[in-house]
Amino acid sequence: MRDHPEIDPETDLMLERVVDVAPELIWRAWTEPEHLTQWFTPKPWETIACEIDLRPGGVFSTTMRSPEGEVLPADRGCYLEVVEQRKLVFTDALGPGYRPKGESFMTAIILLEPEGAGTRYVAIAMHADPAARGKHEEMGFIEGWGTALDQLVEHAKTLA
Amino acid sequence: MRDHPEIDPETDLMLERVVDVAPELIWRAWTEPEHLTQWFTPKPWETIACEIDLRPGGVFSTTMRSPEGEVLPADRGCYLEVVEQRKLVFTDALGPGYRPKGESFMTAIILLEPEGAGTRYVAIAMHADPAARGKHEEMGFIEGWGTALDQLVEHAKTLA
Repeated sequence: MRDHPEIDPETDLMLERVVDVAPELIWRAWTEPEHLTQWFTPKPWETIACEIDLRPGGVFSTTMRSPEGEVLPADRGCYLEVVEQRKLVFTDALGPGYRPKGESFMTAIILLEPEGAGTRYVAIAMHADPAARGKHEEMGFIEGWGTALDQLVEHAKTLA
Repeated sequence: MRDHPEIDPETDLMLERVVDVAPELIWRAWTEPEHLTQWFTPKPWETIACEIDLRPGGVFSTTMRSPEGEVLPADRGCYLEVVEQRKLVFTDALGPGYRPKGESFMTAIILLEPEGAGTRYVAIAMHADPAARGKHEEMGFIEGWGTALDQLVEHAKTLA
């Protein structure tokens, strides 16, 4: 987290990897619902719906289905920063129009930097405190986000 | 709330008034700590400290002191939108750098529109649900924010 001084290792989690897909394609996979649903949830979980209004204050919502067929309530968060092909920040602390949700779990930061023909991909999950970080780690942040990234890369290559 | 379709009367509170001070001076009173501390809290309460980093994700923090001399812990929120002399959005759901705070009470929207030599001033408090709105109403939103606006106008006139 040397290059990201705003990140606190006590409360935050980070995944960093260089992948062989251009930032442009990763951006499309993150910001177009028909593509995001193809990779967002590690299989055999599925993302069955996705709502994106790509501007600060706009909705970012996903609906997931468990391997047993249980559909979880949509988690309606909102975007905070949108920098085309470079940076995406969203949170579950606020709903569309910045309405507070009362409780929150995390703010996510996705950073894309061109590296050769590929991308240096950084995903950060910021939490309120070490307990929330620990919970996210137990939920399998590293493995889950890593597997989703594998799926993202595989899907993004079909967009080239 | 006719002119603000994003506002939900079930969960939100709004104060609207035309005041005889230009938007430029109201903006300064809202965004410069040495001025904000002069009006932000209805007397005999006081705002004894204020931290402002005027950009999305930047800190907005105030420290208040009760008439009995009790100093409340600083409430460190962050800005979400900053449109010079026109719009200010901040929330207590997120701290500096958009870090979630776990719990939240409100997102505030301040809108300034020139009207003659003065300003149409709109202050909106958005809550998660009707219960939070009710709590804010009981805390005296209308009277408190109205009195603070009186103090703001009086102080802003000294900046002309």
